[in-house]
Amino acid sequence: MHSTMQHEQLTLARLLCHGTTVHGRANAGTWQGERFETLTYRELGARCGQLAHALRTLGVRTDPGDEQSVVATMMWNTHRHLEMFWTAPAMGAVLHPLNPKMGHTQLVHAIDDAADEVIVVDAELLHILHRLLPLTAGTVRHIVVAGTSPHSAAGWQPPAGWSGEVHDYEELLHRSDPGYAWDEERDEHTAAVVCYTSGTTGAPKGVVYSHRSIYLHALQMAAADRYHLSAREKLLPLAPMFHVNGWGLPHGALLSGAGLLLPGRHVTAKAVARMIEQGRPTLSAAVPTVWISVLAELDTGRYDVSSLRRVIVGGAACPPSLLAAYRDRHSVQLLHAWGMTETSSLATLAVPPPPADEADAEETEWQRRTTQGQLPASIRYRLVDREGRPVPCDGVSTGELELRGPCITGSYHGGRGRDPQRPLDSFRSDGWMRTGDVVSITPDGYLRLTDRTKDVIKSGGEFISSVELENALMSHQAVHEAAVIAVPDSHWGERPLAVLALHHSTRTPLEDLRDHLKEQVDGWKVPERWAVVDTVPKTAVGKFDKQELRDRLARGALPTVTVHRSRPVAERVTPIGI
Amino acid sequence: MHSTMQHEQLTLARLLCHGTTVHGRANAGTWQGERFETLTYRELGARCGQLAHALRTLGVRTDPGDEQSVVATMMWNTHRHLEMFWTAPAMGAVLHPLNPKMGHTQLVHAIDDAADEVIVVDAELLHILHRLLPLTAGTVRHIVVAGTSPHSAAGWQPPAGWSGEVHDYEELLHRSDPGYAWDEERDEHTAAVVCYTSGTTGAPKGVVYSHRSIYLHALQMAAADRYHLSAREKLLPLAPMFHVNGWGLPHGALLSGAGLLLPGRHVTAKAVARMIEQGRPTLSAAVPTVWISVLAELDTGRYDVSSLRRVIVGGAACPPSLLAAYRDRHSVQLLHAWGMTETSSLATLAVPPPPADEADAEETEWQRRTTQGQLPASIRYRLVDREGRPVPCDGVSTGELELRGPCITGSYHGGRGRDPQRPLDSFRSDGWMRTGDVVSITPDGYLRLTDRTKDVIKSGGEFISSVELENALMSHQAVHEAAVIAVPDSHWGERPLAVLALHHSTRTPLEDLRDHLKEQVDGWKVPERWAVVDTVPKTAVGKFDKQELRDRLARGALPTVTVHRSRPVAERVTPIGI
Repeated sequence: MHSTMQHEQLTLARLLCHGTTVHGRANAGTWQGERFETLTYRELGARCGQLAHALRTLGVRTDPGDEQSVVATMMWNTHRHLEMFWTAPAMGAVLHPLNPKMGHTQLVHAIDDAADEVIVVDAELLHILHRLLPLTAGTVRHIVVAGTSPHSAAGWQPPAGWSGEVHDYEELLHRSDPGYAWDEERDEHTAAVVCYTSGTTGAPKGVVYSHRSIYLHALQMAAADRYHLSAREKLLPLAPMFHVNGWGLPHGALLSGAGLLLPGRHVTAKAVARMIEQGRPTLSAAVPTVWISVLAELDTGRYDVSSLRRVIVGGAACPPSLLAAYRDRHSVQLLHAWGMTETSSLATLAVPPPPADEADAEETEWQRRTTQGQLPASIRYRLVDREGRPVPCDGVSTGELELRGPCITGSYHGGRGRDPQRPLDSFRSDGWMRTGDVVSITPDGYLRLTDRTKDVIKSGGEFISSVELENALMSHQAVHEAAVIAVPDSHWGERPLAVLALHHSTRTPLEDLRDHLKEQVDGWKVPERWAVVDTVPKTAVGKFDKQELRDRLARGALPTVTVHRSRPVAERVTPIGI
Repeated sequence: MHSTMQHEQLTLARLLCHGTTVHGRANAGTWQGERFETLTYRELGARCGQLAHALRTLGVRTDPGDEQSVVATMMWNTHRHLEMFWTAPAMGAVLHPLNPKMGHTQLVHAIDDAADEVIVVDAELLHILHRLLPLTAGTVRHIVVAGTSPHSAAGWQPPAGWSGEVHDYEELLHRSDPGYAWDEERDEHTAAVVCYTSGTTGAPKGVVYSHRSIYLHALQMAAADRYHLSAREKLLPLAPMFHVNGWGLPHGALLSGAGLLLPGRHVTAKAVARMIEQGRPTLSAAVPTVWISVLAELDTGRYDVSSLRRVIVGGAACPPSLLAAYRDRHSVQLLHAWGMTETSSLATLAVPPPPADEADAEETEWQRRTTQGQLPASIRYRLVDREGRPVPCDGVSTGELELRGPCITGSYHGGRGRDPQRPLDSFRSDGWMRTGDVVSITPDGYLRLTDRTKDVIKSGGEFISSVELENALMSHQAVHEAAVIAVPDSHWGERPLAVLALHHSTRTPLEDLRDHLKEQVDGWKVPERWAVVDTVPKTAVGKFDKQELRDRLARGALPTVTVHRSRPVAERVTPIGI
């Protein structure tokens, strides 16, 4: 028997047409320092039409395959970035969001590897591009400057040796017609967006999302037990849109008609608190470090954040103490998510299961919420040990997580005209993607992150989870940030080193922190060596940068102390939360 | 550039593996007359494994294409039907749910057209199959009898002239191993389920769903602003599973971990009320006629139905008065849905938009809820007039609705070895599917059904909507059911005829009903001719059977009266609701 169903494609053009008509009354706001400036999705659609015409005049090509043009952005979360997010792929080009916080070498590599032809850049970020451009291989033919500032298109003198054209974003749009015949029948496997992993070692690698993978990811996100997107929600995406395809939030918003509040470049704790008060979002999303700093601001009690019901925390393991603090002090539900560039962002989300029985309901709910979350229907998963042998999903055993699925990458972009890369440390020969994360999984699909494989500490033949130690340390009220790395040890092979940033006002001695840790984890896991820093270094996407810590240690730039002494229990300070 | 994403398939095997592991603790109950007998999804998964092995021993073939076996069911909503729903497609065969209420000629046609090889039948329905089997073309080789009754497998003597084998469902399972290697990598375009339209005229036509279309439909259903499925919901699907692929509810349940409460063959108003009280569902679904009869039972005040929050009403236009009655008297939100076999069931759902401003919030919400609902992202739509010219989606103009989408059929099954059928009254040459429904669509995608094209009444060059008249009539407290059909008229061409079933206790004269109608619709639309019947005849899926009414009228079996006289306003009875 043969299916009679239509062979309709899952395209971003379809989602754009849907979002800007059926959800035409919804709107997107961009923070202007004091308030949000908004436009409706209907207006957004007209501007995307203008933008598509404009990009065509710049010679952007949309034939699938090697000749498909790549259009890059170097922009904050603004409505113009949103327009680029939709227009470039919906018209048939490939969008390449550049991370301005990446190192220059890595940025130049990404631009050359993707063969960017056009770069749309926020005026405030033009100075970065100015320094990079002479170092690139020469594929970039057009720079489009968005926004006005001392560095706007009119005032900017391109660097010597670069011979392309410079345009003003609004001028390009102004000259163009809003009506555009979006191709809703494009093959869904066509490339739509390329994002480069911002790994702490090695050159960044390109993951190329297809129309299909982005569409399916957005559909999954909208589910009641995932991001619960609908026309009644308003999203405040604090995770930058250049990070893992904007975590899929721009796509989920137009699919479901949820409103968008875009923070622009203003992501300080104070600005975020004021955005929540003014824009009244129902849902927000960012890495844990952002929520750690916003918490202190909200704790001043100066803001009305009553609209905010749920917050997605992803990108790194979130300490349970932070979940408890938001729950208890601000009635906000932090939802723990796990994903990576290679999984199209959202893979797991810690929405708790319905209570099995009333007695242990609260306990079970909290246990589940402190995991990294539950795996969705589209993802096949398995755990393997260091030798590649299967590990059971019993909620206790740990192994490296391997995945398959329509939103999981199967390779890395190999550069124009070159084959895709399938390095052995990232992909198995049977096609499964190796996450590099060591986790346990319960029989009902809840994943608990123990470590990155490269961050695992092997002490006396046993593994110590750096995440476990970090969570326990961050549950102490004196600790602002905590990162644990392995240091060589002549006796044990490796031992943990605790690197802490303490709250400014604290006078808690490290001995107390050591005691606090001893109450929560096995004694043999407690580190002997400790280091206190002003702030734990962050990667380009705001995660703790353990590679930088290892580098500092190696070059003697991370002074450590040995902490042994224990004090009587009575003197211990009380941990917060849970 | 080329996408690097994995080419993973959207298969029912994947959803089955997900639902029976990650959601293994959820459960499905079947009503036994007094209570629900339940099994967990984990147990369901094991039984599906046994069933797959058993079907293999019966020679069921799973190679895609012409050689793929078709396995039929003739069953009520039970856990065994659920097992068949998942097992047959997940193992690679095609499921064919037969509608036991269809006429025998139509059933025989469906069995022969699909070339069913195995039929799994509830013991209570064996007598129907017994009469059909000798009339079929001979493809059926195995009958599997589910459940015990005087007609169980052991006691049944197959009809003379049929030489296949008879099996007992539980015995087959008992002999088989629960572990089965489901093929999660099957091509998603493979045929999974065939459903026959139960049109009131002509032979039923087969719509063949693919793994892809069912998977996508389930993903869409789970969305927060659609069926809002999650592990915290419990579904009571009253629409029979043989009707339009069970409205996708069996698939949505395992995707999301929502519990299932299956009514078996007990769909009387009393039984439904008791199921709600005992099973405590949060969501139910059925055609309007079911909710009309259940309302009277709930109005007795004898049942605790507080668990029930939402009810999907689809299959036919639902009178606004019914929505109001459930809202006001039982705090249940009736959600109006529209779809057809050709659209994989759910196409639109009347979830209201967020209020534009506070002043008209309630008014807007109610207006939207009384439409057939909003079109989802996956569906492209257009309206055309009788000459095929475009009609604007302005919320006022009406035209025939035409659709495209991955869950919309592009043809009908042509029978084994024959090409698919694309009749001109069902498909345009450019591939769009003609729904045969006359509707208006608002700029934000809300659809309002005016009529079936074949039910439209053309009076003096103007169209009268039978649905408008039916809704107005059913808002009167004396009216139980109302169907309006066209009758020939020498002067006007056609005029409406109102066919009513009145509540048993009512003594309201037809003149009052005529006056009631005059208050709600234009005077020239009010019918002169009326008919009162005990009950409006229903199609095999419970919709009003207008073809049967036309037939009765033609053969003089529907006595009508002429109602002209109007009485003073003061004597009029007060309409209920809105």
